[in-house]
Amino acid sequence: MMLSAGNGVPSFTPRVVLELASDTKEEAITWLLSRIRDTQYNGGTELLVEQLGPGADAQEKENPNMFLVGATWQRLLSGAEDLGLFKEFNDGSMRAFTCANKYNFKDFKGDGDSFLSTAECQYIIKHELDTLRAKDETHVPGLSRVKLYPGKSVIRRLLSKGILIQVFPLHEKEELKRLSFAWYKKVKLSFQPLEDIRHYYGEGQALYFGFLEYFTFALVPMALIGVPYYLFDWEDYDKYVIFASFNLVWCTVILELWKRCSSSLAYRWGTLSRKKAFEEPRPGFHGVLGFNPVTGRQEPLYPNAKRQLRVYLVSLPFVLLCLYLSLYVMMIYFLMEGWALSVHDAEPTFWTGILCFIPSVLYAVVIEIMNLIYRYAAEFLTEWENHRLESSYQNHLVLKVLVFNFFNCFASLFYIAFVMQDMVLLRQSLATLLITSQILNQLMEAFLPYWLQRRRNKKMVRKIHKGKTLEDQELPLANQVRLEADMSTYLGTFDDYLELFLLFGYVSLFSCVYPLAAVLVVLNNITEVYSDAFKMCRVFKRPFSDPAANIGVWQLAFEAMSVIAVVTNCSLIGMSPQVKAYFPDSDMQLILWTVAIEHGLLAFKFILTFLIPDVPKHIQINLSRLEFESREALKKKRALRGGKSWKPRRSPRPPSEEEEEEGGGRADAR
Amino acid sequence: MMLSAGNGVPSFTPRVVLELASDTKEEAITWLLSRIRDTQYNGGTELLVEQLGPGADAQEKENPNMFLVGATWQRLLSGAEDLGLFKEFNDGSMRAFTCANKYNFKDFKGDGDSFLSTAECQYIIKHELDTLRAKDETHVPGLSRVKLYPGKSVIRRLLSKGILIQVFPLHEKEELKRLSFAWYKKVKLSFQPLEDIRHYYGEGQALYFGFLEYFTFALVPMALIGVPYYLFDWEDYDKYVIFASFNLVWCTVILELWKRCSSSLAYRWGTLSRKKAFEEPRPGFHGVLGFNPVTGRQEPLYPNAKRQLRVYLVSLPFVLLCLYLSLYVMMIYFLMEGWALSVHDAEPTFWTGILCFIPSVLYAVVIEIMNLIYRYAAEFLTEWENHRLESSYQNHLVLKVLVFNFFNCFASLFYIAFVMQDMVLLRQSLATLLITSQILNQLMEAFLPYWLQRRRNKKMVRKIHKGKTLEDQELPLANQVRLEADMSTYLGTFDDYLELFLLFGYVSLFSCVYPLAAVLVVLNNITEVYSDAFKMCRVFKRPFSDPAANIGVWQLAFEAMSVIAVVTNCSLIGMSPQVKAYFPDSDMQLILWTVAIEHGLLAFKFILTFLIPDVPKHIQINLSRLEFESREALKKKRALRGGKSWKPRRSPRPPSEEEEEEGGGRADAR
Repeated sequence: MMLSAGNGVPSFTPRVVLELASDTKEEAITWLLSRIRDTQYNGGTELLVEQLGPGADAQEKENPNMFLVGATWQRLLSGAEDLGLFKEFNDGSMRAFTCANKYNFKDFKGDGDSFLSTAECQYIIKHELDTLRAKDETHVPGLSRVKLYPGKSVIRRLLSKGILIQVFPLHEKEELKRLSFAWYKKVKLSFQPLEDIRHYYGEGQALYFGFLEYFTFALVPMALIGVPYYLFDWEDYDKYVIFASFNLVWCTVILELWKRCSSSLAYRWGTLSRKKAFEEPRPGFHGVLGFNPVTGRQEPLYPNAKRQLRVYLVSLPFVLLCLYLSLYVMMIYFLMEGWALSVHDAEPTFWTGILCFIPSVLYAVVIEIMNLIYRYAAEFLTEWENHRLESSYQNHLVLKVLVFNFFNCFASLFYIAFVMQDMVLLRQSLATLLITSQILNQLMEAFLPYWLQRRRNKKMVRKIHKGKTLEDQELPLANQVRLEADMSTYLGTFDDYLELFLLFGYVSLFSCVYPLAAVLVVLNNITEVYSDAFKMCRVFKRPFSDPAANIGVWQLAFEAMSVIAVVTNCSLIGMSPQVKAYFPDSDMQLILWTVAIEHGLLAFKFILTFLIPDVPKHIQINLSRLEFESREALKKKRALRGGKSWKPRRSPRPPSEEEEEEGGGRADAR
Repeated sequence: MMLSAGNGVPSFTPRVVLELASDTKEEAITWLLSRIRDTQYNGGTELLVEQLGPGADAQEKENPNMFLVGATWQRLLSGAEDLGLFKEFNDGSMRAFTCANKYNFKDFKGDGDSFLSTAECQYIIKHELDTLRAKDETHVPGLSRVKLYPGKSVIRRLLSKGILIQVFPLHEKEELKRLSFAWYKKVKLSFQPLEDIRHYYGEGQALYFGFLEYFTFALVPMALIGVPYYLFDWEDYDKYVIFASFNLVWCTVILELWKRCSSSLAYRWGTLSRKKAFEEPRPGFHGVLGFNPVTGRQEPLYPNAKRQLRVYLVSLPFVLLCLYLSLYVMMIYFLMEGWALSVHDAEPTFWTGILCFIPSVLYAVVIEIMNLIYRYAAEFLTEWENHRLESSYQNHLVLKVLVFNFFNCFASLFYIAFVMQDMVLLRQSLATLLITSQILNQLMEAFLPYWLQRRRNKKMVRKIHKGKTLEDQELPLANQVRLEADMSTYLGTFDDYLELFLLFGYVSLFSCVYPLAAVLVVLNNITEVYSDAFKMCRVFKRPFSDPAANIGVWQLAFEAMSVIAVVTNCSLIGMSPQVKAYFPDSDMQLILWTVAIEHGLLAFKFILTFLIPDVPKHIQINLSRLEFESREALKKKRALRGGKSWKPRRSPRPPSEEEEEEGGGRADAR
């Protein structure tokens, strides 16, 4: 998509868009552009940047301060090296890319102009922009209110001060069309094009879709076993016990196997070996400028003890308070429902019938509002905790939101199951909650934004040409950029995982009461693939790639859920009248047996987790080999250096070329 | 201790002794010595080896085939490099030693003759001897019955065929004297000289003594809290509950903190970063000769699937069968005891009084016999499983022996506690078992072997000079070697850890019944330090050093014990009459509360394990820095190589010396 100059179109491939506020002073813009264009030696990024020309049918209301950012291939490759991107080597293993060694990488041809995927290019540019740090400026030229501190990210500062409205990567129309066709435009029985998704959206997205697919397939056996329970109306608990036992073991096994599956994917995509310690600090991270003890590079430092204090003395109590509030609201709901029922029972009229529904509706609304408020609070708190790494930030945010959502969604079910002990009501509530949340989710998540998007698009397209949309090939770049700038921002895989997590809860926590749950979740997941794919391709701005090696804290969350599921299922079975009938004389015997079996299952789960290795053998071997080579290389380097320092400095080099070739030749021989 | 030649004394520092059978043919000896002396290029070990001359007062019965092995300092240093030993670098960090870079290591002076500790020298020589592999010989020359297979360890083969009787390292009289004085010869209030122990016996031993010391100190708070229970005869369970709760949390905390402590020690001793993957296969490992996929070196390979089959289809059922047998024996014991009591009760005479003791004595004897037989079986099975790495072999052996010992020791206590529910009997049994096992252990472990040793020594010393023992400075080398050859072989830290593990069980499992246990264990541990130190220095042959990074599978064992302790203590408290009094109406309420609290405690334990990082921050940083440098070096090497391969081969080197110095200078700057 190299575009010719002229007509407001840049002379390089535009990859990322910077949108500045329309009233930004010329001086500030000039300064920013010069900083971006400056050489790396001078603390710049050496990226290419140009102002976007007016659209084909320019309006006065249009923001003129849109900038396209791109880079030469050379710059991108050196950025890939800085980031330590792993690419496939000639011998099929994954190695950190280095420019000097570029011709030994598979698929590197000519000057490497198709070596990096568009997602990788955008990720590199984003990283370079993020690490554009203030030097000795005290404020942004022309904007004295925007103070700058040396070593702090300029882009982040401008974003938080509202001068930079947004930074987003551009869609690649041709590629998007191909991807969306392969992904969701035909109903098919094949797997998702994970490689293409990774290529276009990056590893984080691809891992989510991989997990979604894996999760769906993993639930199929449970769904198949669950169907006869529904068809034949099996109500005896003997059979439920079998189902629940299978369920518990199965949950453990699929979660363990997913770890292996995920590390295979991450290895193939080269994210498995990228080490956390070398992650750049996240742009929002602030602190006193110092030297990173690991890399020796200058970067902001923030004492860990202070962060821990914030986590344990502020965030933790806040979360606990919110949980208490959530429980309190639930209790009010049950009280109100009880009161409404008693009013209805005392004197049933049409109005009291309606009154019975009011508590549920109110409760649902309050839950949604609480979730929303809590989400903002959690984001604010986690930001304030000032985590150095993006992954650490995400982990803390996920943990906060997850615990609260778990409570909000399942507290009422737990109350019905273990306090009211009403299995029929539990089954009803479970089914209602599951189905309602599925329908609501699909609507809220894909079709509502799409509808909003369409309305906005239509308005815009009407302004420009009649009948031209984003998919149209002839849409000029300026208009495409403006169209995309108006699209909603995709907020990451967070909500998608959260949804899967809650679905997993419905399937596993009370599976012995409602075996059909797995069937519903499988059906939901199949449509979810399509709606998520559609949402990614059509509704949202293209997100920046996120080179994830695994699903992170979600793995832990799913495992915790499967442990809780053992406890709930054992208790439910222990409480069932059919099982109670086996112990007619003493409740104690029953409970003791239940507890013993539960402990046995938990022990079995832990042993299983311990026995199944997280990384498949062949990948382990590959990783050890790379590490071995890396150590040998270090030794070699030390050997050369050590030999040198005890010989006259300018003497002819002691080890002959042949000798060196022989010693280190293994790395190249492959 | 460099000895002058002549008088049967070698011309090098002897480090290791090889004892061949006295009837070994001359031809075989000549061949073995020549293989050991041969250059590494020819598949030899390049070690120095000489026959030990006759003792000062030679007897006809003396074995003439004793050989002293040593090595030049150069050979030892290159061996240290091959093994990847970590030593302290000039900048205080721990780095893998390389000969080329030797002058940058701290304490390296002159030709490095005090750089390696004696334990390290012996370890290197042992490793070199172990990796002396058969080339194309089909059998040992002169001994056609001893077949050899290419790539298999010669030493191991000779050992298993009984031609090589033993290989052991020599004590260093001067150093031993200093160590034993600092360690156990004076009653003192200081810590053990861990650095000296490590220096003399290696990291594995030092870690054991470090753990013993840590464990003792960690139990002091529990002991202090336990004393008033004994003094004031507190019998109310309210107080026991407090003690047990403190106990459970404390156990978790000390085990977590030990991990940090252990990794600090291992980092300081340079064993933390030595990677498992680069361990040489253990000498007994056999398989088809192939190429190690990680290092590319030739070594025997054995399919993992076959090993797994052996573990799960043979070893596991065998262990389960043994556990069943152990339970069966215990049941017979209780039946016999019941019968004896009933006989005594029916018609009490002196003989029936004695009869009451017989079942206990019989049971104790049977348990000891079972432990012994089982230990041999476990060793045989684990050997047969053919583990590639010594650590893996140890883990499997430990797991087998540990599970069985746990059952044998605690099964009767569990039976008394939960089936008979007799708390008074439980307390009695616990106290009796604990005290008896402590006394027996100390006797069996140190004083019995010492007594046997003394008798043997005396016989020998009487033969040579009157009144000269190993400690005597003027004992000639030949006699010293023969004295040491007769000493018992130390079988590793296994039994010592097992003892601590069982003591930990007595303290934690039933702590709420018998708070005084901690006091007894602390007292025992204090004497244990002395008896173990004495045993190491005086009773046993010097063991080869074992560069351990942690206490391995024992950490897991102790953690598992602390989890079981939560379950047992909660149940014991739940069963106590005082707690039952709180729930006069329903047993169910009581059990549910007990189970809930138990689950809460378990969850708390796991969260705590998760929250406390295993490696202290500053060590993490040091390790990441080393890895970062290693990666940078690899990049650098690739850059040089990559740059070269696209330029004419013999051109003047492209990167100038300065440029290279600047890029890689960080490693040296420290």
